[in-house]
Amino acid sequence: MLYPGKVKDDYKKAISYKNRGMKLENLINITNEYYIANDIALIYKKPTPILVVKVDYKKKLISEGYYKTPSTLDYNGIYKGKYVDFDAKETLNKTAFPLANLHEHQLLHMERVIKQGGISFLIIKINGLYFLLDGNIIIDFINNNKRKSIPFDFIKEKGIQIKEGIMPALDYIKVIDEYYFKEENL
Amino acid sequence: MLYPGKVKDDYKKAISYKNRGMKLENLINITNEYYIANDIALIYKKPTPILVVKVDYKKKLISEGYYKTPSTLDYNGIYKGKYVDFDAKETLNKTAFPLANLHEHQLLHMERVIKQGGISFLIIKINGLYFLLDGNIIIDFINNNKRKSIPFDFIKEKGIQIKEGIMPALDYIKVIDEYYFKEENL
Repeated sequence: MLYPGKVKDDYKKAISYKNRGMKLENLINITNEYYIANDIALIYKKPTPILVVKVDYKKKLISEGYYKTPSTLDYNGIYKGKYVDFDAKETLNKTAFPLANLHEHQLLHMERVIKQGGISFLIIKINGLYFLLDGNIIIDFINNNKRKSIPFDFIKEKGIQIKEGIMPALDYIKVIDEYYFKEENL
Repeated sequence: MLYPGKVKDDYKKAISYKNRGMKLENLINITNEYYIANDIALIYKKPTPILVVKVDYKKKLISEGYYKTPSTLDYNGIYKGKYVDFDAKETLNKTAFPLANLHEHQLLHMERVIKQGGISFLIIKINGLYFLLDGNIIIDFINNNKRKSIPFDFIKEKGIQIKEGIMPALDYIKVIDEYYFKEENL
């Protein structure tokens, strides 16, 4: 209000940032809808956590709220009886995936999922390509590196590419099958 | 604003309603924290879904939002490698649990979880007692009854009581063990 020009720019920035984030998120959301409709898997995006400060119960209106930092990953559910828990991350960086994108709580959550016998990974969009990178590989990388980012070459080597398609839009279950259910497929 | 007396009453009603809901929810939340801290299970409450209409990105403030009806159950996670998905419901009705508390989408979700090989149930607080009632039993009841509520006697007979404790506050994992992992315990 005080600096309308500034606000507009920030707003634009926020919108473009949001759209950037949304693209991969939307691909996954419509893929999940496809999986649910076809009884393939049951995976949902968790709602974004919001701290609600003021509510007008009469109007059912939240008039003051703030986004909270999530302490878990965005997606979870079940596939072939297995617990699946992951997040989708997008970077415009062409040479590496900055680890600042992954909060410490989220990393700890990944470790816990794996410890409980679940499957955890990231879907990373980098250079216009999509990769599934397993949680164990990410945890190992962080424990054995002082780097603040995972190089693109490493992701290409250790991750599995997920191809964009029509139905489903981003068939990451196919990649889960290849990577986590290999023995069953033999 | 127009009818301050009215607003105050509504507000009071909303608060007391919220506290009623919160009690069981809080018991489960602190129980889940205990399970996570002790590497017993990894179960979280999903954030309440909110439709965000207006955001001031500069102030990071949500100035218009509305609660949405959840299409899944509130809690999910993993225990002993098994996918667990449930909801907590409280009723002041002493003779029966009104099925209006369970949305159609939530019932469909329960069916899908079970179909995928997961565990799904309700934790019901009725007459000051807590019961775990399995999803299959609930689905069967609904399919074979025209009743709009599940009688307390039925819940007592078919459900398993969960005892309140100190640490953890409401040890529903113990009941899951008895009910779903019986064979393993023999």
